[in-house]
Amino acid sequence: MGEFELIRQFFAAAHCAQAVEGVALGIGDDCALLELAAGQQLAVSTDTLVAGVHFPAVCDPSLLGQRVLAVAVSDLAAMGAEAIGFTLALTLPEVDAQWLKDFSDGLSRMAHRCRMSLIGGDTTRGPLSFTVTVFGRIPAGQALRRDGARPGDLLCVGDHLGDAAGALSLVLGERQAAQELARPLLARYWAPMPQSTLGQLLRGHASAALDISDGLLADCGHIAKASGVALEVNQQQVPVSTELQALLGRDAALQAALTGGDDYVLAFTIAPEALQRLVLPGFIHVHVIGRVLPGEGVTLRDSQGHDITPVQRGYQHFRETP
Amino acid sequence: MGEFELIRQFFAAAHCAQAVEGVALGIGDDCALLELAAGQQLAVSTDTLVAGVHFPAVCDPSLLGQRVLAVAVSDLAAMGAEAIGFTLALTLPEVDAQWLKDFSDGLSRMAHRCRMSLIGGDTTRGPLSFTVTVFGRIPAGQALRRDGARPGDLLCVGDHLGDAAGALSLVLGERQAAQELARPLLARYWAPMPQSTLGQLLRGHASAALDISDGLLADCGHIAKASGVALEVNQQQVPVSTELQALLGRDAALQAALTGGDDYVLAFTIAPEALQRLVLPGFIHVHVIGRVLPGEGVTLRDSQGHDITPVQRGYQHFRETP
Repeated sequence: MGEFELIRQFFAAAHCAQAVEGVALGIGDDCALLELAAGQQLAVSTDTLVAGVHFPAVCDPSLLGQRVLAVAVSDLAAMGAEAIGFTLALTLPEVDAQWLKDFSDGLSRMAHRCRMSLIGGDTTRGPLSFTVTVFGRIPAGQALRRDGARPGDLLCVGDHLGDAAGALSLVLGERQAAQELARPLLARYWAPMPQSTLGQLLRGHASAALDISDGLLADCGHIAKASGVALEVNQQQVPVSTELQALLGRDAALQAALTGGDDYVLAFTIAPEALQRLVLPGFIHVHVIGRVLPGEGVTLRDSQGHDITPVQRGYQHFRETP
Repeated sequence: MGEFELIRQFFAAAHCAQAVEGVALGIGDDCALLELAAGQQLAVSTDTLVAGVHFPAVCDPSLLGQRVLAVAVSDLAAMGAEAIGFTLALTLPEVDAQWLKDFSDGLSRMAHRCRMSLIGGDTTRGPLSFTVTVFGRIPAGQALRRDGARPGDLLCVGDHLGDAAGALSLVLGERQAAQELARPLLARYWAPMPQSTLGQLLRGHASAALDISDGLLADCGHIAKASGVALEVNQQQVPVSTELQALLGRDAALQAALTGGDDYVLAFTIAPEALQRLVLPGFIHVHVIGRVLPGEGVTLRDSQGHDITPVQRGYQHFRETP
């Protein structure tokens, strides 16, 4: 048995203890088997993370394990789906038992939090990268798509924004901060919590939704385009954490919230009356940050209503170009 | 819009024209949505192919596109599932429009052959590799697993073996051959045809099945282990093509058939009476090559019944270690 076969068994043992409804057959055969109750659809999303592009090549493998899965599950949350399972394609330059154990521990922690199990995957030799494919179930016809925003809807986000982008300077060692300031920001970068509860509660209420991964303004552009509407964002309503303001100052914190990425917070549009009907648990704080109008594109407005839309809206993650 | 966003749109346009039953929502949102008819399960499998490990870094991108998908679909065939769709996570060192067009053409050709559509994916910058996750449907409880082989069953394969392993020496330029000899062998390497029809016909008849990717003897070991039985392979019954014998000679051709890999031919166990009931189309040739016995492990026997099991059974694909 080769070392890669051992790794497969190691991951299988670490993650398949958890029996999850919907997984009829897990790791070990040519395919895994999933099943759905009548009237359900399966949501599927794939994300690749490459060392040196999406995360620093040298980092804590346990945190990396958490992050790799959380980022992928966030797409399920954005659709309103309930996570079931995931496959992991792991490409490693070499086999380091301690690194694998730590990575697996972090992955396992996030899998348990999200109540999902590893159902399959592949392990190959090559430059460090991960491709995670996640599976979730959702009642047919209730998925939160990007194309349903209508003029008159409100634009909302599910939490404050910019913490992960702010934390990146700490991750890269470009900036220092006291422990009590750094800790919550780094947690937002390394272990974003997919907003699965919010996503599921928004089913039947929100008109469009997505998770913010490329930056608020860039991702709002995706809703505007898919829905054939204009979105207006009021800068003073964009929520930023006190930690981020303490780290960067108010202006740069706002900038991180508007154009930074890696938030994995939901952005959604919803009719005002539907928002009023929404009953949310105490740990979820939804912020109205703008509205949907006829037209196209995304406009940022200051407190006087002036158009202050920046030219650069996107976000290149850790590093897009070598 | 970045070049990677353009690539996503290019692939979406190339592959989503094909409407496939079971795909409720394809590329373009946070997730794709699949749906199943009542009583069906979804089969899922993930494969990663890394340049320089699973395929030569310099090769025809059109052939590579075909191969990347065929290899993954073979796992669906081995389970008896009918292909629906796939996701493609594509990591590229640089954007080369002609390379992408050719790769996409090959991928598209195989997708049409297999009647499946691209439902999602991710495009990232990094060392060349692909992770394909394939989806297929199958009536609940009818999947061909590895753990059902019983003493008294026959061991069969769905085609002759070893062509791809023999072709590898041509692919690597280590050996030359006349066109008429090289062409069919290279086709088996670059465009293996997943035995989906055979897999679906075996449902309810075969007791265990898998696709041979690591070599006949190594993969038979997986059935033996999962089923808790012994498998006996009769060397003189192992089918090899006339082309492979012409290229390598009889002995080396047999060796390629027994321990070479990349065949993507089904191996299965089946009760003798179930095999007799099986009605197969003319283009499928099933070969009985051995039998299932009580015990464990895989034994290779010559025409006199002597145990000639080789020590080295595995296959390291293109190159396992850097």
